[in-house]
Amino acid sequence: MRQLSDPDELADIARGAAILGTGGGGDPYVGELLAREAVSQHGPVSLVSLDEVPDDALVATVACLGAPTILREKLPAGTEGPTAFKALQNYLGREVTHVLPVEVGGLNSMIPIAVAAELGLPLIDADLMGRAFPEFQMVLATLAGIDGSPMSMADDKGNAAVFQTLDNRWAERFARSTSIEMGAMAFVGSYSMTGIELRTCAVRDTMSFAQSLGAATRDATDSRTGPVETLREALGAVRLLEGKVLDVNREMRAGFGHVKCVLEGVGEHAGSTVRLHAQNEYLLAEADGELLACTPDLLFVVESETARPVTAEEIRYGMRVSLLASPCDPRWRSAEGLALVGPSYFGYDVTYSPVETLRSTDHPGS
Amino acid sequence: MRQLSDPDELADIARGAAILGTGGGGDPYVGELLAREAVSQHGPVSLVSLDEVPDDALVATVACLGAPTILREKLPAGTEGPTAFKALQNYLGREVTHVLPVEVGGLNSMIPIAVAAELGLPLIDADLMGRAFPEFQMVLATLAGIDGSPMSMADDKGNAAVFQTLDNRWAERFARSTSIEMGAMAFVGSYSMTGIELRTCAVRDTMSFAQSLGAATRDATDSRTGPVETLREALGAVRLLEGKVLDVNREMRAGFGHVKCVLEGVGEHAGSTVRLHAQNEYLLAEADGELLACTPDLLFVVESETARPVTAEEIRYGMRVSLLASPCDPRWRSAEGLALVGPSYFGYDVTYSPVETLRSTDHPGS
Repeated sequence: MRQLSDPDELADIARGAAILGTGGGGDPYVGELLAREAVSQHGPVSLVSLDEVPDDALVATVACLGAPTILREKLPAGTEGPTAFKALQNYLGREVTHVLPVEVGGLNSMIPIAVAAELGLPLIDADLMGRAFPEFQMVLATLAGIDGSPMSMADDKGNAAVFQTLDNRWAERFARSTSIEMGAMAFVGSYSMTGIELRTCAVRDTMSFAQSLGAATRDATDSRTGPVETLREALGAVRLLEGKVLDVNREMRAGFGHVKCVLEGVGEHAGSTVRLHAQNEYLLAEADGELLACTPDLLFVVESETARPVTAEEIRYGMRVSLLASPCDPRWRSAEGLALVGPSYFGYDVTYSPVETLRSTDHPGS
Repeated sequence: MRQLSDPDELADIARGAAILGTGGGGDPYVGELLAREAVSQHGPVSLVSLDEVPDDALVATVACLGAPTILREKLPAGTEGPTAFKALQNYLGREVTHVLPVEVGGLNSMIPIAVAAELGLPLIDADLMGRAFPEFQMVLATLAGIDGSPMSMADDKGNAAVFQTLDNRWAERFARSTSIEMGAMAFVGSYSMTGIELRTCAVRDTMSFAQSLGAATRDATDSRTGPVETLREALGAVRLLEGKVLDVNREMRAGFGHVKCVLEGVGEHAGSTVRLHAQNEYLLAEADGELLACTPDLLFVVESETARPVTAEEIRYGMRVSLLASPCDPRWRSAEGLALVGPSYFGYDVTYSPVETLRSTDHPGS
């Protein structure tokens, strides 16, 4: 266990989590502000490892769900997370003992810090994806047979809801339509579970990993190899392209941000063109119809100068960016995992291949 | 207090309630079946008057919300009403003591009978509209400042939700989007209140009134003046047209059944053409651009032969029907009432005039 309160540490977590958020998971600046404000008001948050959570703990997640576009226009009021969490506790009829991030992301790693601070609860150094994904049921908990219900929701106006659903796909449907009514963004409390269950479905130490990535790239502008190379090494990733953004097509559909980008290689990658597809998160990269990497493996877009993460919401024409990829948690590569978050689920007509095997073919950046 | 259990009485209530449902409020045959089944399984239901409800009673409504079209394709499982009611009780943390119909309608007067039978609770001989209206906030309780939240919802698959909303308009928004996800139809528990509050916002004796209308028209085929005239007298209504259905335009939009009909006069009304507009309920009738009657006054369409009510869902080309109208509860005619359920709210470009005053002008059927 250690204490989180230092503003620089929070900034590092936000930055690193935005990298691991693979384009989604919310805006790290908003996330950092929310966490800093809560910690300065309510004091430091205890960060505990998976092994420190008692078997009979009552763990629950809290997160923001919706289209990232909205957060750039409408900041959270700050009351939504605690309201959602309290609605969940009220339904469960008992107090939650530990706060768990549902995913890693610039906002969704920080909201749990803010809620943990406000409620005086320990925060677990883990999450349920090892990255960010756009839909509610896309967690390792679903693979482990753990119910996302009861699921609570809250908006900034004072509306709240609790759903008890048949399965996690049904929860996604209700969450999406309700989040749209709530202004295309809502805060969600869900996946309540015991400490024993937690250890069957969490990715460990992802808060600390995010913090280390943030710290490494924050000071890497002076490093010999440059910040992107520092990040690549820290991630164990491959660099698929260094280039600039040539075109961005952006659409909000059914409560999601759908983005298609064209990246054009520069320097040693000159002449290469990569197409990048996102639904909140970056999900697939291809060059001339050839697959470079796809979900559930992680795709990262960072500024080439600074290795600052560039979300799918933020990416725009003319940016100099580097595209990296790294392997996902091995549980996502099972048949059940791929059915839940593989390329077919998102409507891409490709067969999943691990990024390591694709990497060995002769494509740009290899 | 009296006991409801006789199948003929239930059939009369369903028929009479479908008349007062002014084209909406659900299918009376489905409603009758649900109530009969519940009463035969669980025993008779005590029907109590407004004055018999203790001041400190905990009253709540239960109803079906959605597009009537759906009920013709998918019958309720029978579990939805009790599930919604139990979710409400669970949220309130105390037992509801009395069941209240939210509106009068072929289905929504019968569901409360079924739920009262299943839960062994008394049913109140009243409702919150004195007719049926399509949206959640359209109750006299809203005018009296009584909150529809907490509002619970349940579907036939086992999904349930509870909403705590800012006001009754917000509850309508969440109810509508969630009902669409639930299959364009859901059961709702709401408007929990004390006996004292109940007496500020209910229309009294509407179950008994529905039953008397059903009984009067059931045997009226032998009467000298005919069943429609018998009904007209019992309602204190005016007959606007006797005619046949020339055209029906039907559309399901945003979870509502929108219907436009053209009726052509026969007999003494030959040569008259009436246009009738419905959103679940019949809301406005006009002839040659002249207003005949409109919401919140009641518009009734019944078969000319039998005075059997014809819902907006059921009305079709070639039917011989009579169009009647009667005054609404006077509270709906206040400025606040008209803002909530007047013609402007539904997008009709007319100024409300009470049906009695319109009746004095020289229009078809006067």
